[in-house]
Amino acid sequence: MIAELPRDEIDALLHEQVVGRIGCHADGLTYVVPVIYAYDGEALYVATVEGQKTRMMRRNPEVCFEVDEYERGSWRSAIVQGVYEELAGVDADAAIELLAERFGRAGRDGAPRRRHGGEGSTVCFRIRVHEVTGRAVAR
Amino acid sequence: MIAELPRDEIDALLHEQVVGRIGCHADGLTYVVPVIYAYDGEALYVATVEGQKTRMMRRNPEVCFEVDEYERGSWRSAIVQGVYEELAGVDADAAIELLAERFGRAGRDGAPRRRHGGEGSTVCFRIRVHEVTGRAVAR
Repeated sequence: MIAELPRDEIDALLHEQVVGRIGCHADGLTYVVPVIYAYDGEALYVATVEGQKTRMMRRNPEVCFEVDEYERGSWRSAIVQGVYEELAGVDADAAIELLAERFGRAGRDGAPRRRHGGEGSTVCFRIRVHEVTGRAVAR
Repeated sequence: MIAELPRDEIDALLHEQVVGRIGCHADGLTYVVPVIYAYDGEALYVATVEGQKTRMMRRNPEVCFEVDEYERGSWRSAIVQGVYEELAGVDADAAIELLAERFGRAGRDGAPRRRHGGEGSTVCFRIRVHEVTGRAVAR
């Protein structure tokens, strides 16, 4: 039995889950990578380090974001189509604050430690939610 | 601390995990969708129903497959680049058998029930592993 989730249940799932996966595509390559995130109802916020995903999303900001929950054959999942926006200044500070509320302060409990400049520097971004679908499968 | 996983640990992670996510791209759209799967060391096997992901993977069989495990800020993840191959006849039967060993017989414990023809018909496929990377992040 497959059911489409209504928007309020999709939002609840996006608020509950801790790990989501970003799907991005550039230069013929499709790449899926897990991230921890925070959600404010309009966008998904991530702090990460400079690397393949940030390079790919700058080239092609149209991305997908996915969360799922699976238990004994029953599923709930949400799939977002959205747009990558890199954050700087006060917007990056706000994202870090939102993530800190969920994951603790920098360097503790998995919260990203913020670094400036060069290799391993912190990149804050949001994925602005354009379209979202959710499904529940009960067996 | 980020470490690259050696191939045997990547294989162990792919054998252990139950849910993976396929990333595919066609006609300008990137799509990430969760699946349950079986792994035989060379390919990931899935039985699903006809739908958006099967249509997209037929158009562009170069796909990504991802699994992750996250606990209290520590990660393990594997990211596969592979090729979609739809299965028929004895190859589809073998895939169904492999999935049944993991998830139980059709219709029980989340194992897909097999249907033939039309809307909701079963599609068996494998993603042949071409490249795989794995990471562990300990905090």
